[in-house]
Amino acid sequence: MVQNGQITLYSSPYSPFSQRNQIALKQAKADYTDYVVDLSAKPAWFTEKVNPVGKIPALTYGGPKSAPENPPPEAAKINESLVILEFLADLFPEAGLLPADPVLRAQARLFINVFETKIFEPFRSFFFTPDGSGTALLEGLEALQARLPPSGFAVGEHWTNADSAVAPFLVRIDLMLKNDIGKYPQSEGVKVLEIYQGPKFTRLAKYIEDIKASPLFKDTFDEETNMKLFKNHPYTQRK
Amino acid sequence: MVQNGQITLYSSPYSPFSQRNQIALKQAKADYTDYVVDLSAKPAWFTEKVNPVGKIPALTYGGPKSAPENPPPEAAKINESLVILEFLADLFPEAGLLPADPVLRAQARLFINVFETKIFEPFRSFFFTPDGSGTALLEGLEALQARLPPSGFAVGEHWTNADSAVAPFLVRIDLMLKNDIGKYPQSEGVKVLEIYQGPKFTRLAKYIEDIKASPLFKDTFDEETNMKLFKNHPYTQRK
Ligand SMILES: N[C@@H](CCC(=O)N[C@@H](CS)C(=O)NCC(=O)O)C(=O)O
Ligand SMILES: N[C@@H](CCC(=O)N[C@@H](CS)C(=O)NCC(=O)O)C(=O)O
Repeated sequence: MVQNGQITLYSSPYSPFSQRNQIALKQAKADYTDYVVDLSAKPAWFTEKVNPVGKIPALTYGGPKSAPENPPPEAAKINESLVILEFLADLFPEAGLLPADPVLRAQARLFINVFETKIFEPFRSFFFTPDGSGTALLEGLEALQARLPPSGFAVGEHWTNADSAVAPFLVRIDLMLKNDIGKYPQSEGVKVLEIYQGPKFTRLAKYIEDIKASPLFKDTFDEETNMKLFKNHPYTQRK
Repeated sequence: MVQNGQITLYSSPYSPFSQRNQIALKQAKADYTDYVVDLSAKPAWFTEKVNPVGKIPALTYGGPKSAPENPPPEAAKINESLVILEFLADLFPEAGLLPADPVLRAQARLFINVFETKIFEPFRSFFFTPDGSGTALLEGLEALQARLPPSGFAVGEHWTNADSAVAPFLVRIDLMLKNDIGKYPQSEGVKVLEIYQGPKFTRLAKYIEDIKASPLFKDTFDEETNMKLFKNHPYTQRK
């Protein structure tokens, strides 16, 4: 397979879901347009012509390069960040977004599954609601860590979709915890941070360091702007 | 890729998750052993040697044929029915478990995503708890129906993993609704059934008929035994 037509990613600069796909597009060295959708004033054409569900990220593929407001009628429309990751792995099989070996591919998907079923919801509720459970978050992180090889990325020395899927969230969790940002009670934050920075999580800490040092991650994440957003967003303000 | 070593599926005859993988193994014409795990007396070796999470389905791949209680140490262990579906598509690329075209593959995964995010939870709570919402279940089914092509299966004339993923659940939903089985109040069941059998769901009804007529489905589903289970299972008894 080879890219056959335009690719447009509809994204938001603060969205970890979008960053999953931005990383993969860079890794694939795809020729693409990244179009920022203003979620606070979502244009009608976005829901009509790109994603009926109205969420970013969304991707169009195929046809000639066109204004993002007017995707080519023949273009395929794909939403859901994890489906887009698989799509890009299929479209660019030489780029290593997934390993070639079926067993390693399954391991990449199981890694993502642990994030989706054990970390995402505790992450959301711990940082963005007053009733989240730090214990659930730590348990999820521990389950993910248990799947990491002794060194390197999620399924080996090379970055794959497994890393693209979790990195945007892990780095945000790391920054928010270390900077005492989120709706959780401050005393709970102190306890969680102590365990998170303790000996139980050395492997995960190294993994997050490796992520932050990776060019694919750095090119798609602006720490300063994100920190400002975390600090000031209504979602993260304690009562 | 070609099968290189034994495959064992650990399953349960009533589990729709297991049936997803049984269908795909048949479609791939894989050489495999199907081993029934007694969930009411789960053997210790299963959690120790096959799936630490203790759930079926689980699959081992690789090494020589061995007793299911003693998987070859070199065998890969894969759990999660949807990850196993992707694994089988990777291992048997000629079998058509997924189409070759990346866009169609994305459509298959989006179809599964609708089931996972909009039907699974309403299905569970409608049939197995007294507080489920028939409206949520019908909305989920409508969203799935909206993704069906005018005729055929989920992404075309040929059966794919998209069908394997949803068929075991859709047929169970169909049978339980039509036979007034489940914890929902009887009056709610009557209302839901009327809409479900009405003009809004003609396309879904045809899809479920096509599923039931498909040899892949028939070979992996024993309606009579399943009906007995639904009727008598504590999970489905009204108070
Ligand atoms: N499951 C989706 C989640 C995407 C999502 O929640 N996007 C949010 C932004 S982070 C969004 O577009 N919200 C805008 C809206 O719902 O109006 C995925 O993985 O792509
Ligand atoms: N997300 C899993 C769900 C599997 C699952 O829930 N399996 C149930 C049977 S249907 C099970 O093994 N339960 C036994 C237990 O948890 O002890 C999958 O898709 O494979």
